[in-house]
Amino acid sequence: MRDHLILWLQRPLVRNSIIGVILFNAVILGLETSVTVMAQAGGLIRFLDALCLSIFVLEILLKLYAYGWRFFCNGWHIFDTVIVAAALVPGGHSVSALRALRILRVLRVISVAPRLRRVVEGLVSALPGMGSVFFLMAILFYIGSVIATTVFGETFPQWFGTMGRSAYSLFQIMTLESWSMGIVRPVMEVYPYAWVFFVPFILLTTFAVVNLLVGLIVNSMQDAHSQEKLQDTNSYRDDVTDRLRRIEEALKRLEHR
Amino acid sequence: MRDHLILWLQRPLVRNSIIGVILFNAVILGLETSVTVMAQAGGLIRFLDALCLSIFVLEILLKLYAYGWRFFCNGWHIFDTVIVAAALVPGGHSVSALRALRILRVLRVISVAPRLRRVVEGLVSALPGMGSVFFLMAILFYIGSVIATTVFGETFPQWFGTMGRSAYSLFQIMTLESWSMGIVRPVMEVYPYAWVFFVPFILLTTFAVVNLLVGLIVNSMQDAHSQEKLQDTNSYRDDVTDRLRRIEEALKRLEHR
Amino acid sequence: MRDHLILWLQRPLVRNSIIGVILFNAVILGLETSVTVMAQAGGLIRFLDALCLSIFVLEILLKLYAYGWRFFCNGWHIFDTVIVAAALVPGGHSVSALRALRILRVLRVISVAPRLRRVVEGLVSALPGMGSVFFLMAILFYIGSVIATTVFGETFPQWFGTMGRSAYSLFQIMTLESWSMGIVRPVMEVYPYAWVFFVPFILLTTFAVVNLLVGLIVNSMQDAHSQEKLQDTNSYRDDVTDRLRRIEEALKRLEHR
Amino acid sequence: MRDHLILWLQRPLVRNSIIGVILFNAVILGLETSVTVMAQAGGLIRFLDALCLSIFVLEILLKLYAYGWRFFCNGWHIFDTVIVAAALVPGGHSVSALRALRILRVLRVISVAPRLRRVVEGLVSALPGMGSVFFLMAILFYIGSVIATTVFGETFPQWFGTMGRSAYSLFQIMTLESWSMGIVRPVMEVYPYAWVFFVPFILLTTFAVVNLLVGLIVNSMQDAHSQEKLQDTNSYRDDVTDRLRRIEEALKRLEHR
Repeated sequence: MRDHLILWLQRPLVRNSIIGVILFNAVILGLETSVTVMAQAGGLIRFLDALCLSIFVLEILLKLYAYGWRFFCNGWHIFDTVIVAAALVPGGHSVSALRALRILRVLRVISVAPRLRRVVEGLVSALPGMGSVFFLMAILFYIGSVIATTVFGETFPQWFGTMGRSAYSLFQIMTLESWSMGIVRPVMEVYPYAWVFFVPFILLTTFAVVNLLVGLIVNSMQDAHSQEKLQDTNSYRDDVTDRLRRIEEALKRLEHR
Repeated sequence: MRDHLILWLQRPLVRNSIIGVILFNAVILGLETSVTVMAQAGGLIRFLDALCLSIFVLEILLKLYAYGWRFFCNGWHIFDTVIVAAALVPGGHSVSALRALRILRVLRVISVAPRLRRVVEGLVSALPGMGSVFFLMAILFYIGSVIATTVFGETFPQWFGTMGRSAYSLFQIMTLESWSMGIVRPVMEVYPYAWVFFVPFILLTTFAVVNLLVGLIVNSMQDAHSQEKLQDTNSYRDDVTDRLRRIEEALKRLEHR
Repeated sequence: MRDHLILWLQRPLVRNSIIGVILFNAVILGLETSVTVMAQAGGLIRFLDALCLSIFVLEILLKLYAYGWRFFCNGWHIFDTVIVAAALVPGGHSVSALRALRILRVLRVISVAPRLRRVVEGLVSALPGMGSVFFLMAILFYIGSVIATTVFGETFPQWFGTMGRSAYSLFQIMTLESWSMGIVRPVMEVYPYAWVFFVPFILLTTFAVVNLLVGLIVNSMQDAHSQEKLQDTNSYRDDVTDRLRRIEEALKRLEHR
Repeated sequence: MRDHLILWLQRPLVRNSIIGVILFNAVILGLETSVTVMAQAGGLIRFLDALCLSIFVLEILLKLYAYGWRFFCNGWHIFDTVIVAAALVPGGHSVSALRALRILRVLRVISVAPRLRRVVEGLVSALPGMGSVFFLMAILFYIGSVIATTVFGETFPQWFGTMGRSAYSLFQIMTLESWSMGIVRPVMEVYPYAWVFFVPFILLTTFAVVNLLVGLIVNSMQDAHSQEKLQDTNSYRDDVTDRLRRIEEALKRLEHR
């Protein structure tokens, strides 16, 4: 019974229907942002949204029954449950920030469509290999924030008043957005040597970001390369080794004749 | 008769003449933007433009006759026809936006020059392999637009008033143009936690763009790599396999002697 | 005795304790930037900071005793000593810039954690290979600064008044921050042909930066590639060569029978 | 006699002396930008500059005598002559723009130092392979300029008044500098659909730039790869082919015994 349900849930038709409901729900939630549409057909749209939500809840309950406790072994199941549960939080319809979170349900399309799932899994699997560089960048940001807050905090409280503001301003500087005209030139009018801090900070963080990029490229290249090689080279190599072994055996037979 | 016409149309001389007419037309359309030139020689320039257009129409009619219904099997033929037809739309000389579209005729140089054609075909052929990442980015933008419109739409209607404005503003933020000083800092004065939305959005979209770039690099590299390998390695491999086969046959003959 | 001390210092437990002290010190120095925290528990935080510093001094003295004069052969030891010594400079608690430098102690975590050490050594080892491109960029910046100071220095002293200001402004232009709206458009109102200098400068420096990036990618790729190859290919090649040698020997024995 | 002169000119000592004079001249020209230095030692600095220039002129005359008409076969010789000749133009000391060009003499260091020469030759040799993409970008810019001038020229003459201004503004937009806040948002207040032109323009040019980058990476990689391969693989392949040939000959001898 349960196995039948699992097979039925994994059918392409069921899958594609769920994808259809997700995309339909995305359109509904998009229409909800329009004031004119809500004035004319607000009731219908809220009803359709509730309908989509019920389908999602039903789907999760079915999966929960079908898989039993193994349901929680799959990270994507937990992902789905959290996203759908977020919409059931009371008060979600009054506070606009919570209401906005319901659109995250569209992310469910990633967990349902196998190709998107593989892309996301690929992106996520690339992250651990870059852990050391991320940790280095975190250290750089922490050091930079402490220095900026200590030195520039009193004179420029709006940019470097607290550790949080400094970290945000340094992130902006790392993205090179208005770093000079907006931040460093005004700072240099008070502290003429401020560039001694900011220019190396830009060089170091940019260099770290570039290294993340290089690491990503080298990793993907090696993956692609080794896969291609295995298919292509191994059959040739096996052939050569086989023929050489047969030749050796033939020679042995000749010698012992 | 038709085959002769096809051969004649594919001659380098005819091709280069067409390229010449296209580039001459480009210069004419460039001169048309200058008020002083138009005041002095407006009539001549309009006449030369009409002349170029007639040559293009003639060329397409000749091709249509030469290829018959197969004319529409070639994507580049349809590309040419649409571009030339756009200039024949009535009213094209009064509305400045339609008039401006005539310069798109210069794009015809791509369909005529074989090297440019190959480059564009190479660029376009790289797109489908990145379809999943494009779809992920579209989802990110859709979710981002709904959240931004719901949460910030009322307070900042010029940036996030409708889905379209939000999508445009998020595109600007993705390109990192004035994202902080121009948009996020003003928003944070009303919603102090707005960075919780914008900073992850920047990180996610930048990461997706970087993955597009990495995908492009890996693809081109593999193409270049496998082509180089086929020429280089196969002749050596065939040589080794041939020699090994001859050795095995010689040994068989020896054994059965 | 000394060798025992070296072994004890290299134990994982001792290492991880030092990392713990460094990170604890980082938190302490972060808390010091908060005015409210310092008002309530300033004495305790200053005491804990002094405690961490004493542990670092003790560690360096122990290493100095254990390694003797070989202590100075290791670049990381010198790195540690300089960073810790910087905090002992008198007056470090009054001048805010010097006080801020104490946070650099967090960098010690790089010298203690082996993985971070390897990442940084990898990044640094990539630099010499790019020496020529760096030198070219330095020449470009020097030439650009001299030209900008000579031509635009009198009219725009705040941007190009001295060699230093010109170099800073050109660095800003290289990062593409407000280069046009902020700098070049105002300059072009006085010198309409200023773009003849700035646009090629942007193209050349961007091209040089791109070449640094390409160099980095090719280097890392080759490192990764050659390592992978050595493991994979060599065993196969040795196998083929061995078998071929045995076949040749068997044939010789057959001939001389 | 001439051959002796060529050998003498190519000696490391002579070369390094010339590099020394170039760098000394660079410092002199840098000092000339400082008003205070010129007020105190203007005469000395002008004298030293003239001295350096005479040395360069002497060097070129010697090379001209030594190589004869073959002097003009080497692109770097012509490069040196043009740069030095530029400083001899009369009036060069009065017009600041011409005076500034003298600093270009520092570029001579590239033609003298062999390593820098190789780097620049490497960069330049990568350009022709990207000719098609450059041509495509030129077409894109030409089309973009004509459209922008026709449609937005009248309303925004400072940005899109002439073909030249449009090309400059589009270059700024391609570098993503203030494209939205500075240009497109103001334009959209008059033409609400202006994004239909600018957003695709940004996407297309960015995509073209990315393709230039990818082309550069793939080229350098292949160069590095094929060099490495030639050294490594060929010796192994020759060994296998040799052994196989010897085995075949031995078998033939055995058969015909």
